[in-house]
Amino acid sequence: MARTLYASVRDLPIVSPHGHTDPAWFAYDEPFDNAVQLLLAPDHYLYRMLYSQGVPLEQLGVASRRGPPSVEPRAAWRQFASRYMLFRGTPSALWLDQVFADVFGLTVRLDADTADEYFDTIGAALRTPAFRPRALFERFNIEVLATTESPTDALQAHAAIRHSGWPGRIISTYRPDPVIDPEHAHFREALGQFADITGEDAHSWHGYLAAHRRRRAAFALAGTTATDHGHPTAATADLSDREAQALFDKVICGRFTPAEAELFRAQMLTEMARMSLDDGLVMQIHPGAFRNHNRALYASHGADMGADIPQPTDYVRALKPLLDRFGNDARLAVILFTLDESAYSRELAPLAGHYPVLKLGPAWWFHDSPEGMRRFREQTTETAGFYNTVGFNDDTRAFLSIPARHDAARRVDCAFLARLVSEHRLAEDEAAETAADLAYRLAKRAYRL
Amino acid sequence: MARTLYASVRDLPIVSPHGHTDPAWFAYDEPFDNAVQLLLAPDHYLYRMLYSQGVPLEQLGVASRRGPPSVEPRAAWRQFASRYMLFRGTPSALWLDQVFADVFGLTVRLDADTADEYFDTIGAALRTPAFRPRALFERFNIEVLATTESPTDALQAHAAIRHSGWPGRIISTYRPDPVIDPEHAHFREALGQFADITGEDAHSWHGYLAAHRRRRAAFALAGTTATDHGHPTAATADLSDREAQALFDKVICGRFTPAEAELFRAQMLTEMARMSLDDGLVMQIHPGAFRNHNRALYASHGADMGADIPQPTDYVRALKPLLDRFGNDARLAVILFTLDESAYSRELAPLAGHYPVLKLGPAWWFHDSPEGMRRFREQTTETAGFYNTVGFNDDTRAFLSIPARHDAARRVDCAFLARLVSEHRLAEDEAAETAADLAYRLAKRAYRL
Amino acid sequence: MARTLYASVRDLPIVSPHGHTDPAWFAYDEPFDNAVQLLLAPDHYLYRMLYSQGVPLEQLGVASRRGPPSVEPRAAWRQFASRYMLFRGTPSALWLDQVFADVFGLTVRLDADTADEYFDTIGAALRTPAFRPRALFERFNIEVLATTESPTDALQAHAAIRHSGWPGRIISTYRPDPVIDPEHAHFREALGQFADITGEDAHSWHGYLAAHRRRRAAFALAGTTATDHGHPTAATADLSDREAQALFDKVICGRFTPAEAELFRAQMLTEMARMSLDDGLVMQIHPGAFRNHNRALYASHGADMGADIPQPTDYVRALKPLLDRFGNDARLAVILFTLDESAYSRELAPLAGHYPVLKLGPAWWFHDSPEGMRRFREQTTETAGFYNTVGFNDDTRAFLSIPARHDAARRVDCAFLARLVSEHRLAEDEAAETAADLAYRLAKRAYRL
Repeated sequence: MARTLYASVRDLPIVSPHGHTDPAWFAYDEPFDNAVQLLLAPDHYLYRMLYSQGVPLEQLGVASRRGPPSVEPRAAWRQFASRYMLFRGTPSALWLDQVFADVFGLTVRLDADTADEYFDTIGAALRTPAFRPRALFERFNIEVLATTESPTDALQAHAAIRHSGWPGRIISTYRPDPVIDPEHAHFREALGQFADITGEDAHSWHGYLAAHRRRRAAFALAGTTATDHGHPTAATADLSDREAQALFDKVICGRFTPAEAELFRAQMLTEMARMSLDDGLVMQIHPGAFRNHNRALYASHGADMGADIPQPTDYVRALKPLLDRFGNDARLAVILFTLDESAYSRELAPLAGHYPVLKLGPAWWFHDSPEGMRRFREQTTETAGFYNTVGFNDDTRAFLSIPARHDAARRVDCAFLARLVSEHRLAEDEAAETAADLAYRLAKRAYRL
Repeated sequence: MARTLYASVRDLPIVSPHGHTDPAWFAYDEPFDNAVQLLLAPDHYLYRMLYSQGVPLEQLGVASRRGPPSVEPRAAWRQFASRYMLFRGTPSALWLDQVFADVFGLTVRLDADTADEYFDTIGAALRTPAFRPRALFERFNIEVLATTESPTDALQAHAAIRHSGWPGRIISTYRPDPVIDPEHAHFREALGQFADITGEDAHSWHGYLAAHRRRRAAFALAGTTATDHGHPTAATADLSDREAQALFDKVICGRFTPAEAELFRAQMLTEMARMSLDDGLVMQIHPGAFRNHNRALYASHGADMGADIPQPTDYVRALKPLLDRFGNDARLAVILFTLDESAYSRELAPLAGHYPVLKLGPAWWFHDSPEGMRRFREQTTETAGFYNTVGFNDDTRAFLSIPARHDAARRVDCAFLARLVSEHRLAEDEAAETAADLAYRLAKRAYRL
Repeated sequence: MARTLYASVRDLPIVSPHGHTDPAWFAYDEPFDNAVQLLLAPDHYLYRMLYSQGVPLEQLGVASRRGPPSVEPRAAWRQFASRYMLFRGTPSALWLDQVFADVFGLTVRLDADTADEYFDTIGAALRTPAFRPRALFERFNIEVLATTESPTDALQAHAAIRHSGWPGRIISTYRPDPVIDPEHAHFREALGQFADITGEDAHSWHGYLAAHRRRRAAFALAGTTATDHGHPTAATADLSDREAQALFDKVICGRFTPAEAELFRAQMLTEMARMSLDDGLVMQIHPGAFRNHNRALYASHGADMGADIPQPTDYVRALKPLLDRFGNDARLAVILFTLDESAYSRELAPLAGHYPVLKLGPAWWFHDSPEGMRRFREQTTETAGFYNTVGFNDDTRAFLSIPARHDAARRVDCAFLARLVSEHRLAEDEAAETAADLAYRLAKRAYRL
């Protein structure tokens, strides 16, 4: 039954509404460098595990604040290959093995002995036209791919794609964290760029809001259909204009407490929701990570080094101010994610199973894995149903793994549906229709693609 | 194996020790109206899901604070039927499909095309004697059914049942939330009725306690064996009489903080336990819901509109004052429920597996579903065993779904037991005896029926 | 597949790096008393369940603060036997049935009718040489067994074992809670003994630290490779020497708040980590139990009466001070345990999958059971992999159950690995190698045995 369902959805086009690939790849279509630059150095799932077992990041080809590492790519690849057993039972191994086999035709096992064979085979392939970004995009049968950019990004790569005549649909996502989070490392600098790119007085509250409206409109014009917000918590607020202005003034001066920074982020989620009512952009909220937990590593290597750790995340009280304001307005769509699985059945499914504006994003980050995706369905479906969820997100900068990730999600969903059929909780034809919804249709609908 | 076990329990009588049916149905035995009034309008599981997908409650036949809706029942039914696919994979669909097939003989699928056939078939059936409340009660093989009433309810319907000569056993449950929760919308009004019905000075601390004792005795005389307490948290307190009296005085004046309201509810759980030692009523504690989370919907439609959202719930510290006072007195029985599944293995099973007074209620509300009931057994059995649990509660006002709900619980429990047998963790004869305990005997014993 | 894997590991030697057996058993090799003294009275898993169902501890042969109980062992055994059905579906029944069958050849079911047969058979066996501690140790194929002692223990039993010429490897674990926890019932007394046994000024901060170093060295010299810390929380701190000294002075005077006691324990975890960098002892942190929750029972019977209840446990913020100080120093090894399963996928696997110093201990205490061990693998493997875990701990004072406990762990792990193979997430030869790692090699490596 699971196989029949899977066979019916495996070849559907890929809709990737949330991810972190680089639009420049598709704008300029230059060849990828080598196995390390393509697969290892950008993937914090890989080097976090190797780091946990005592391998220095330098030996893996990961750049530090001092610059690129001096290690030879082949040597870095050998480090990785000789420890590939560490990934047994992880989704990383699942995705990589599928990439190795399906994209590069490599079917021997990766280990110390085969490291060079892998490095050479991948390197040779990457020098051929069939492995250029656009060719892979087409081979992967991607219908639409969303990248993620800051409001201060001029979207030049996206413009270059559109003007190139190449028909691949690659759109951006409005991710304003750098200009919304007063504790972001580059907040003040980003705010200056925000003023420059919009021509608004981004250092006054109303000018700042106008700058957001202007950039959102520019993103929307370039194809964007969604915003994304990666806050430490899901806190929202609903301050009066006067209170919000006073808070903004503190934030701008840099004289704010952590609680005030939190309140400002909270207020801005509500402001973003208000703007979404006007411009129709779908909101995504990705809360719950304690970023840069490893102090020494952050000092030496900066952000995104595999040291972000989930923490308990409240939704019931956190979202209430925003929901009190806009929770029943069906023009708004807010997609919620979590790193705290205990919230699935306790908070998220009940919230999404009630509020018209809320939908549940798929199992995210650490939980985007066979066991994690299975728990997501087991713990949300009975209260929120399938139709308050939004299909799959690959959420990756590992471009080559996109088909493998969607494939894993399709397999897990089909296995879950097949179990419902076998337990007489769903009819076969309903399962088949739902499988296609989960694999393809819901993502298009939820993200207004 | 699961089938053999299930076959041995499927026809056992239904013991329903906790629910929300209307005793007037059985007192006066009048026919039910139509499919909407019987199945849709009273079931917040159904309209919460439809509301989450943008259907206004008015179109579903749900009354607002302004009064009953103007929608025709048939039109409301069509709204529901045309979106029945939203319930795929939910327990609502499981229960309803069984009701449609077993009670009404409807085996085509409910959708837009069959909406009228359903509405007409159900309506015609309801006009026949076989579908009157008492006839259904007998057909369903219900041995005892508990309803839930406030202390201010005169129990007239229950008296009418007893005096009618009809032998169905229908008893009430003492649910004092309206006169215990200072933040209840009708607290002051209920307190006045409490004084009236008892003749006690319910506005003085000792008169108030005496009023409780008097109504508990009246309930017990009418067959009640249990109380029920639906508090926001599981907090208990053990104040001195002087402290309790001072707190009560604040509460009566309406000049209390949220913390004082919480403390009063907490103290009253301990007072209820103290009274249970005398009168033998079993206590049920149902904590953890954030009630009426949707502010606008509460303003327009009132309580119980599908907008109650679970939140993290502490038991270890919350129950300690009550347990310090009465935790080792085996005359007392306290049945604990949760909406926070993370507490199953962490707090509830260890507490129930130690304290003589504590038992675990079954998977509740959002978790009363195949996956939820399975998780309950998987996460509590190894620490609390089966014999610190209390059988199944249907907890429903959807009378027709009672057999389907008990049936689902029996299937899930038998599947769990069969897995233990197949993994050599339980012998077959032990599984058979335990299956009957879970389906029938434990509920009678735990609720002292 | 699961059976093939299990067959390949079932006869591997037992490595037991964390437990609570009495070294005097092996030092003096005297016969065990009877079934009650051997199996029932020391096992709080058993009497907690019986107590929860209303059986007084006195009737089970459990000593109170007043002294040993007056009940005859045979009568206590009958109490237990006649309620053995309460343990259906629990790991206690699983372990005991295996002990009865494999160690004593008892294959009829334990109940009221067979109680005496069991008592007599076990009693007779215990009087034979084959059931002396050393003979059982050898029969059980134990390669190494760690006990747990306080720093104030002179390790005489361990010395006696070493000097006896018997080759069994039995080592201690350094468990300094009594001299680290200012709220420990015997803290002041233990501190005096600590001064006596070390000759250091244990009532001054630097003398106190020197006393730790001295005892750790003595333990290490006697074979110890690990320390263990059973704190209420996982809090760590990194105070300056001056702050730590001031805090120690308060603690010594007995004039400290609960928050200061917590801070002292937190600081001492960091001090212990600092010492581990020097002497190589592996740290184990076992947080999260609310000890002695039952006030009356603690007053009458003391600690360890089955009344310790888990509570929510934070790791992300709690461990940060220690990790900021030493988290990247691969010489240090810290093994984390939890009683809060919601932390597996949310906090523990991400932490262990990143920090070089962290590893995950196995499913612990209430979760050391088939369902609990399965959840551990399902919820940690995808993020932390297998190689950031450390094999199995039996953590028991029930010596006879050690083989059964390791056997259960091997079965569960093999079943999990077999599922990965069947879902094409792992190759067969990888599963076989991993099975042996989980059953044997990882424990030796992680505990530096």
